Amino acid sequence: MSSELERIARLLARLAHDAPGVVVGIGDDAAVLDPPPSGAGGEKLVWTIDEQVEGTHFERELMTFADVGWRSVMAAASDLAAMAARPLGILASVVLPADLDEDAFDALVAGQRAASDALGAPIVGGNLARGPCVSVATTVLGAAASPVLRAGARPGDVVLATGPLGLAAAGLAGLQRGVAVPDAALEAWRRPVARIDAGRAMIGKATAAIDVSDGLARDAGHLAAASGVRVVLDADRLRAAAAPALVVAARALDAEPLDLMVAGGEDYALVCTSPGAIEGFVRIGEIEPGSGVFVRDGTREWPAHGGFDHFA
Amino acid sequence: MSSELERIARLLARLAHDAPGVVVGIGDDAAVLDPPPSGAGGEKLVWTIDEQVEGTHFERELMTFADVGWRSVMAAASDLAAMAARPLGILASVVLPADLDEDAFDALVAGQRAASDALGAPIVGGNLARGPCVSVATTVLGAAASPVLRAGARPGDVVLATGPLGLAAAGLAGLQRGVAVPDAALEAWRRPVARIDAGRAMIGKATAAIDVSDGLARDAGHLAAASGVRVVLDADRLRAAAAPALVVAARALDAEPLDLMVAGGEDYALVCTSPGAIEGFVRIGEIEPGSGVFVRDGTREWPAHGGFDHFA
Repeated sequence: MSSELERIARLLARLAHDAPGVVVGIGDDAAVLDPPPSGAGGEKLVWTIDEQVEGTHFERELMTFADVGWRSVMAAASDLAAMAARPLGILASVVLPADLDEDAFDALVAGQRAASDALGAPIVGGNLARGPCVSVATTVLGAAASPVLRAGARPGDVVLATGPLGLAAAGLAGLQRGVAVPDAALEAWRRPVARIDAGRAMIGKATAAIDVSDGLARDAGHLAAASGVRVVLDADRLRAAAAPALVVAARALDAEPLDLMVAGGEDYALVCTSPGAIEGFVRIGEIEPGSGVFVRDGTREWPAHGGFDHFA
Repeated sequence: MSSELERIARLLARLAHDAPGVVVGIGDDAAVLDPPPSGAGGEKLVWTIDEQVEGTHFERELMTFADVGWRSVMAAASDLAAMAARPLGILASVVLPADLDEDAFDALVAGQRAASDALGAPIVGGNLARGPCVSVATTVLGAAASPVLRAGARPGDVVLATGPLGLAAAGLAGLQRGVAVPDAALEAWRRPVARIDAGRAMIGKATAAIDVSDGLARDAGHLAAASGVRVVLDADRLRAAAAPALVVAARALDAEPLDLMVAGGEDYALVCTSPGAIEGFVRIGEIEPGSGVFVRDGTREWPAHGGFDHFA
């Protein structure tokens, strides 16, 4: 295994590239960026961190290291999409076991770089350390004139979504159970996409928003709690919004598409509320006075449940 | 073990506090901050990430979880000190094993909060995940009108340092070898301090700077390489700058203070170069044409070596 300096030099070669607003990128004590315009009509900084840990968020058997790199960047950037922010730059802290081979490391970095390119946001620095498993912490810094928060949904708003709800959960279930599911489901889990453009379409329209990382029921619950409202998911509208690949995957898994859409996480779909329609989003429910998240199917209604708790 | 939501609620209670410039803190998809003033006479963003991993950077037997929390924040903030930046805010991603008890988690968070308070920079968000060992990734965002880089040292500059070089290494060696060393040495390793004020004193004076995380020889080597110069460390000046506790610890460890100062890491001392003196810094060497890092002792001279390589 090569020395840390050689690895850093290779990282530099792979990741270093000029980008607007980057004064100092990889290779100094810290990155230096131009701030977004401040003052009247300016933007706020929007900033998040996420971590993908081997054994918790992924298994080497179920995705490539390039997938791990891609996913670590996109999962973090998705938080910015949910705030209607544009990403300015990315830092990553990579923990690697001593026995990881060079090819795996290179693939991981290539995946990070591909995601960075897809987002149009440069990787401007990072950290490398030894540890018992692969773990990638990614922080993304962005800017938004008026960030959309979890609080702000009002009774009478509609609930809107964009992205393939349930499809990542179907992909993961297929891999874990050894059931053949459409490639689109595997891709949804291995190569999620932070919906930055969709998030930008919310500007001036959405009253509240969140991204779906732990499952629609759970994440809509955060929005409901922050806004002090009740989220009612419409079963018919959700079924109508199901991706064709989800319907095929659900049949193979002997599951209901609706259940996968409500409980399944890691879609990095965006959910927002608004008085009216937003381009690129489909309506999946309504906001009512009250609290909690419910599924309404005709005259029946039940509490939505499911989703991932790291410490349950 | 309580659920993730309960943990997050406890984190909020412990960490949430109003701070100037924080629009949205812990609890939404991302933090929202006021940017520093941009344009002419404005500041740049200075941004870093660091990770402290159990088994690599610390052992539970050698420091408390409060120390781990403190250290994770200070180690990251030290990168900003080395750029002459002021910290604006902090995000932390905490990975915890399933069997870690509540007291340990609370102590870790208390240590993070104490370091945040000492820096005057709020913790504005974070992430919590399960993993095989305790690991804390910390990103610090700051601002500086003219960040001091590793490149910029010129032949004829003096090499200056502030902070207890070698003392953390002496503390760690004492713990690992079961040798009694002064408390100041243990504190230097367990509770390092990011030298933000000293970093600010470099503004307009320092030509290049770096913080000492992996050892003076190694980190001065980064500065030498980035600047295209030769760093010559003066053995007499280093010995004169040795902290009294280092001299005592070195005797107990049967080591030379000079060796600990040159090779020892995790001091988070600042090293900079300048045409003249800087308040709070002591002179420890000179910049000459050439490359590499050398120790000069009277008429003798040898290549400085030592320091920590994560992948050697």
